[in-house]
Amino acid sequence: MHTILTGDRPTGPLHLGHYVGSLRNRVRLQSEHRQFVMIADLQGLTDTEPAKVRRNVLEVAFDNLAVGLDPSRSTLFIQSQLPELAELTLYFLNLVSLARLERNPTVKEEMRQRGFERDVPVGFLAYPVSQAADIAAFKATLVPVGADQQPMIEQTNEIVRRFNALTGSNVLVECAALIPQQGRLPGLDGGAKMGKSLGNALALGASPDEIRAAVKRMYTDRNHLRVQDPGQVEGNVVFAYLDAFDPDTTGVAEMKAHYRRGGLADTVVKRRLEELLLEQLAPIRARRELLARDADRVREILREGCDRARTVAAQTLREVRQALGLEYFR
Amino acid sequence: MHTILTGDRPTGPLHLGHYVGSLRNRVRLQSEHRQFVMIADLQGLTDTEPAKVRRNVLEVAFDNLAVGLDPSRSTLFIQSQLPELAELTLYFLNLVSLARLERNPTVKEEMRQRGFERDVPVGFLAYPVSQAADIAAFKATLVPVGADQQPMIEQTNEIVRRFNALTGSNVLVECAALIPQQGRLPGLDGGAKMGKSLGNALALGASPDEIRAAVKRMYTDRNHLRVQDPGQVEGNVVFAYLDAFDPDTTGVAEMKAHYRRGGLADTVVKRRLEELLLEQLAPIRARRELLARDADRVREILREGCDRARTVAAQTLREVRQALGLEYFR
Repeated sequence: MHTILTGDRPTGPLHLGHYVGSLRNRVRLQSEHRQFVMIADLQGLTDTEPAKVRRNVLEVAFDNLAVGLDPSRSTLFIQSQLPELAELTLYFLNLVSLARLERNPTVKEEMRQRGFERDVPVGFLAYPVSQAADIAAFKATLVPVGADQQPMIEQTNEIVRRFNALTGSNVLVECAALIPQQGRLPGLDGGAKMGKSLGNALALGASPDEIRAAVKRMYTDRNHLRVQDPGQVEGNVVFAYLDAFDPDTTGVAEMKAHYRRGGLADTVVKRRLEELLLEQLAPIRARRELLARDADRVREILREGCDRARTVAAQTLREVRQALGLEYFR
Repeated sequence: MHTILTGDRPTGPLHLGHYVGSLRNRVRLQSEHRQFVMIADLQGLTDTEPAKVRRNVLEVAFDNLAVGLDPSRSTLFIQSQLPELAELTLYFLNLVSLARLERNPTVKEEMRQRGFERDVPVGFLAYPVSQAADIAAFKATLVPVGADQQPMIEQTNEIVRRFNALTGSNVLVECAALIPQQGRLPGLDGGAKMGKSLGNALALGASPDEIRAAVKRMYTDRNHLRVQDPGQVEGNVVFAYLDAFDPDTTGVAEMKAHYRRGGLADTVVKRRLEELLLEQLAPIRARRELLARDADRVREILREGCDRARTVAAQTLREVRQALGLEYFR
């Protein structure tokens, strides 16, 4: 049994990309492992205004619970409610050089996307350190991440090793990345990444009309003009979604073969996907609406989750302080 | 009445430079203001190994109490025991750009002294932000600093204004620097700064023999070879110390005039200084030894100070979290 730390930034409602990339897996993982699911509001604050972060904390909780996260199996909590995480981040900042942070390829790419140069807020540049603290505070051994997030895990383990070496202790443990077999879901427009701000996302709580509209605008093979012509499956968004949502993998393989040799209309493939999405998202949407009507109950779940998570992080921090020689009064 | 935050890094025993530059003033300030005196162990960790920091926390407490800090008037506490300070630092990191930190002249100079380039630990580069959080957490309005630390106060006020603007609140208050009239005490060798690592310091708890040896090796005017020759007072370490320790300012002025026109031997000036130092440091040394024999009582003073300080910082942090929208459960 592993200890897992995973989570989401509450900077917008979650979408199908999150669902396929992580939320769906959490439901599976919670029955086999000890799973902590963090609503990363502090991380949200590194590049998003406070009011927006606050607004989305409950939304992200609804999303997680709606897909089947079971609060009696997974611990769902809010990052900012555990000051231990901030404290550990501060200790970790002494163990990382500026050059090392600037070399982190994930941070580099995200800075480029946001147009940050030297005017990058230090909190943003340092968020891998904050992430390392989150992971280390739970002594997580398994961290689900996208393939592009692998450098974050390496950085975490570097810090963990450095801390243990500095203090001559074995307080902290290293973790491994858990990279999902299912690759990243492309945006509706074929963009590599789905994102609300990119305008190519379908929200997890989408209505049937929104689902239909999304499938309609979804990119296929732009050269597949006549039904009888051979079509391309690679880079074809509709097939990428079928791979992610159709449980009938044989059927999908057959459709792909048919599409490749010609004679399969885009509309037919899209109809299949539309059915699947409507069917799979309907119960999520229904549960989400129920949860939203009972926000107090969700707040109670979060409060209990925070208490449980805090107990674990507080124990690690006692050990960390002891190792650093900061326990003066016992 | 002001609220004052001041303190020391526990990276070595305190010396006469600390005494003249800050400790001595604290005793005066505590009767007029609400004073918090912080043993900055977290800041020490940014460039000093944990065991050394730990060792010096009690030493610094001894030093402060030995010079006359009254724990019923001043609140003496240890930085790491208030996780609220780490938490506020983390919020503040989002409000400062990397470029702004790199432009801070005090940090620049200290990085140069330590030979840091891009390999600077992020915690060290960011320590002005941590300092800003310490000041803001106590809503300090007056911060005693050396003239060279003025940029730290400007940076703090920038962050405070930014926080209030971002949250549309007036939670945090700006502070003013309190720069001592008495300039910085030079090292025994005439170096601009006294420092244990520079080998030109006299510890606050020095023995009579150590005091005599220090005065003996103290630089005077290197061109003042014969008693009858005119001597120079500017840059003459012994006179700088007389300015700092001799209450008879008229007497000092007369000695300076005499020295300038010739006929006053270095040995005479040194004898006067030696008398003064022996007289003024003897009671400090005696109290220091008493305190060191009753370390448990000092630990109790620190524990009470931490409790009192934490109550204040925790109240500010509640307001800060409220302003950021991070109070979800009330």
